[in-house]
Amino acid sequence: MTEASGCPVGVTTEHDLLAEVVTQQLEAMLAVGNYDAVKLLLQPVQPVDIAEAIGGLPPQLQAIAFRLLTKDEAISVYEYLDTAIQQNLLGLLRSGEMREVMEEMSPDDRARLFEELPAKVVRQLLSELSPEERRVTAELLGYESETAGRLMTTEYVSLKENQTAAVALEIVRRRAHDTETIYSLYVTDAQRRLTGILSLRDLLTAAPQARIGDVMTEEVLSVRTNTDQEKVARTIQRYDFLAIPVVDLEQRLVGIVTVDDVIDVIEQEATRDLYAAGAVQAGGDDDYFSSNLFTVARRRVVWLAVLVVASFFTSEVIAANEEVLQKVVLLAAFIPLLGGTGGNVGAQSSTVVIRGLSTQSISGLGPFRAIGREAVAGALLGLLMMVLVVPFAWWRGESALVGLSVGMSLLAITTLAATAGAAFPLLFDRMGLDPALMSTPFITTCTDVAGTLIYLQTAAWLVSNLPQLLQATGISTQLLTAMTP
Amino acid sequence: MTEASGCPVGVTTEHDLLAEVVTQQLEAMLAVGNYDAVKLLLQPVQPVDIAEAIGGLPPQLQAIAFRLLTKDEAISVYEYLDTAIQQNLLGLLRSGEMREVMEEMSPDDRARLFEELPAKVVRQLLSELSPEERRVTAELLGYESETAGRLMTTEYVSLKENQTAAVALEIVRRRAHDTETIYSLYVTDAQRRLTGILSLRDLLTAAPQARIGDVMTEEVLSVRTNTDQEKVARTIQRYDFLAIPVVDLEQRLVGIVTVDDVIDVIEQEATRDLYAAGAVQAGGDDDYFSSNLFTVARRRVVWLAVLVVASFFTSEVIAANEEVLQKVVLLAAFIPLLGGTGGNVGAQSSTVVIRGLSTQSISGLGPFRAIGREAVAGALLGLLMMVLVVPFAWWRGESALVGLSVGMSLLAITTLAATAGAAFPLLFDRMGLDPALMSTPFITTCTDVAGTLIYLQTAAWLVSNLPQLLQATGISTQLLTAMTP
Repeated sequence: MTEASGCPVGVTTEHDLLAEVVTQQLEAMLAVGNYDAVKLLLQPVQPVDIAEAIGGLPPQLQAIAFRLLTKDEAISVYEYLDTAIQQNLLGLLRSGEMREVMEEMSPDDRARLFEELPAKVVRQLLSELSPEERRVTAELLGYESETAGRLMTTEYVSLKENQTAAVALEIVRRRAHDTETIYSLYVTDAQRRLTGILSLRDLLTAAPQARIGDVMTEEVLSVRTNTDQEKVARTIQRYDFLAIPVVDLEQRLVGIVTVDDVIDVIEQEATRDLYAAGAVQAGGDDDYFSSNLFTVARRRVVWLAVLVVASFFTSEVIAANEEVLQKVVLLAAFIPLLGGTGGNVGAQSSTVVIRGLSTQSISGLGPFRAIGREAVAGALLGLLMMVLVVPFAWWRGESALVGLSVGMSLLAITTLAATAGAAFPLLFDRMGLDPALMSTPFITTCTDVAGTLIYLQTAAWLVSNLPQLLQATGISTQLLTAMTP
Repeated sequence: MTEASGCPVGVTTEHDLLAEVVTQQLEAMLAVGNYDAVKLLLQPVQPVDIAEAIGGLPPQLQAIAFRLLTKDEAISVYEYLDTAIQQNLLGLLRSGEMREVMEEMSPDDRARLFEELPAKVVRQLLSELSPEERRVTAELLGYESETAGRLMTTEYVSLKENQTAAVALEIVRRRAHDTETIYSLYVTDAQRRLTGILSLRDLLTAAPQARIGDVMTEEVLSVRTNTDQEKVARTIQRYDFLAIPVVDLEQRLVGIVTVDDVIDVIEQEATRDLYAAGAVQAGGDDDYFSSNLFTVARRRVVWLAVLVVASFFTSEVIAANEEVLQKVVLLAAFIPLLGGTGGNVGAQSSTVVIRGLSTQSISGLGPFRAIGREAVAGALLGLLMMVLVVPFAWWRGESALVGLSVGMSLLAITTLAATAGAAFPLLFDRMGLDPALMSTPFITTCTDVAGTLIYLQTAAWLVSNLPQLLQATGISTQLLTAMTP
């Protein structure tokens, strides 16, 4: 599927294969010291692929390979390396060599790297930066993580209203090499307050003598430095923007967030929701599959322990109802089925509600209507399941008592599970907490406790009341004898 | 939080509130026939917000509001409307009015709309398009859904190698109004084969007399028309592209996929994975929260039925082990706990593996090492859980037999669950099926059957062998009597 790199048009869908081949060739060339071949090999490769190839090398070869890159390549490649390898290179390369890379990195990528480094190293690196880059980095590090302030870059093109389109285009040309994007342009007043935006498309199609103030759009959507990164992502996604301006409390333009960072945020948030649904604690940016087994266990054991302790209540409920189980042991055969079905119905409701909250598709419906809807859906599903489960339980449980207990509690359990599955995430959201925390496994386990209680209490009640009940409804004694255990 | 629309700088984070206010004002103005006020109200509002406001109106007012938009607004707004409302407008507006909108829509959005319409309507609409747009639309509709061919737009700027930068810039200027993006430019030869790309940034900074062939990059990453949309998205995400070219089998450029469509694909795939994890069948593009209750039930009942039938096996296992339960009823108290813990451990493993396959972060590890890793993690988690569970089971189960049965089977169950949780999605992936199909609830339910069997068989074995076992290990008869039930 993958064509050799260097081929003029590469239809690439298997990056990993490409990176693997490059890594192998790279390692072989470095081993024999053929540095010219390395330069030739890497020349047509994209920075992100070079970064992955370097990441696959033994640590001592990483610095050698990195040194062989041109200055521009080194800067782009460095930004794509994993934090651990970035740190490794910092230590291996003499500081003089790294100063240039540090100086030229995007401010947002640099802030993300500095966050991971020991304070001592950060202080040294900051002292080597130019005063301007130092100020910008310190400023970005001052914003809370996962906010627009941390996500933004301070490299953007800003224009003034009274400039002409021709002058503005000249400014764009000059700034093209050192700004993250030149496709979205920002207009500010003397106090650096954002007064309008225009796209490079608008600028290119404007008459050369047109005033920027007349070409720009005054209705600007912006976010604040403390806006949550997920909201920033949703806004860019909704309006199909390439970038969004970030302003401070005084409406002064302080940075922009670009669409490529937003894709990563959307992916990160999706991973977080999925992990929550699977009772796994999400890590930071680090790669799950390269973290060690104790990190893996640590990220899971807390949730498991919580769920096990919740299961103790189910055990308590069963122990408390030992008497009815003693009488009809086959009742035990349906405890997992009822708990499981309740759990699954609860998981379905919480899944759609949590996802609806994430993508904001639930907001058309109010919370009460959403819960009501789920409750009715749960009851409907319970009725449908009864058709399947009651005959099986009656036959397998060898009595009407088991069949009726299972059927009656099934309906109650699915309704309750769907209601709880919808209500808990919505409640959490209202309280300002992450709804995904009220995750599927938690709802599953709670449903288990309640479901088992409902089932065994129903059975206990039927054991003492079924005969009278059947008599009252006029069912013959013969049938009665056949049906009760 | 939201400032009034029309204010020069709006810090918008609550779109829904904005859309709601606009909808209310719009409805009031339309009711009294104040159409000038409507135009004034909508003038500063973004197309996507206008679309949402129109979507909130009663059907008969939608067409009136839509007619009040300027031609350009109408085209942008129409692309953002839900398919149902697009269809409604098609029916309400005289065909002449809609012809212009149809003609000017992005080809990819138009293809998506036509897909949902009845064949008769599509034929009529196609006949009203210009020959060029008709050809393009028919071509797009010919590609399979969820491929690059279906996702791409055919509106892009293509240049020739022997043009100068100045000429190329003029071409870009001329095409700026009718192409989806002018920021990525494509160079083709006489056979329309893609030979290079350049960004508008490259073009702007090139000398006016420079040849495009000298400015462009020859190493082009492209995808084919039949490349899966998720791979297209991952490629754009990986390389931080704004767009990627799509070529046919002969390397001819046929379209481009832009980053805004990719964000929607990533979100759609995340929803699909999350729904699979929650045993909910994902729908198409339609909004879950606006679909009716029977659609909701239909999307869930199939999975539930499968899971209920799987639970029948657990019931069978318990019924088959009725004898040991008869002897020690309290054994039943731990069936849900063991099944639940096994299910949760299995869910954790399948979650990280399924997500790892989606984001391609698992590919560094081979499948066998990934499974081995999960198995060891499962055993580790089982050992940690034993510390918590065995003392509780011993006490609550009122015997060493229950405590030992629970402990021994717990370790076996967590190891098995983690192994299965990792192996099934990887196996499905190898077989070319969607790994998310081998979803968490399915693994949970399978683990339940196996776990219950292991537990009750262990208990049955201990019932007949515990006394000899204890005697063999030299434990005093007094302790023995206290410990066996």
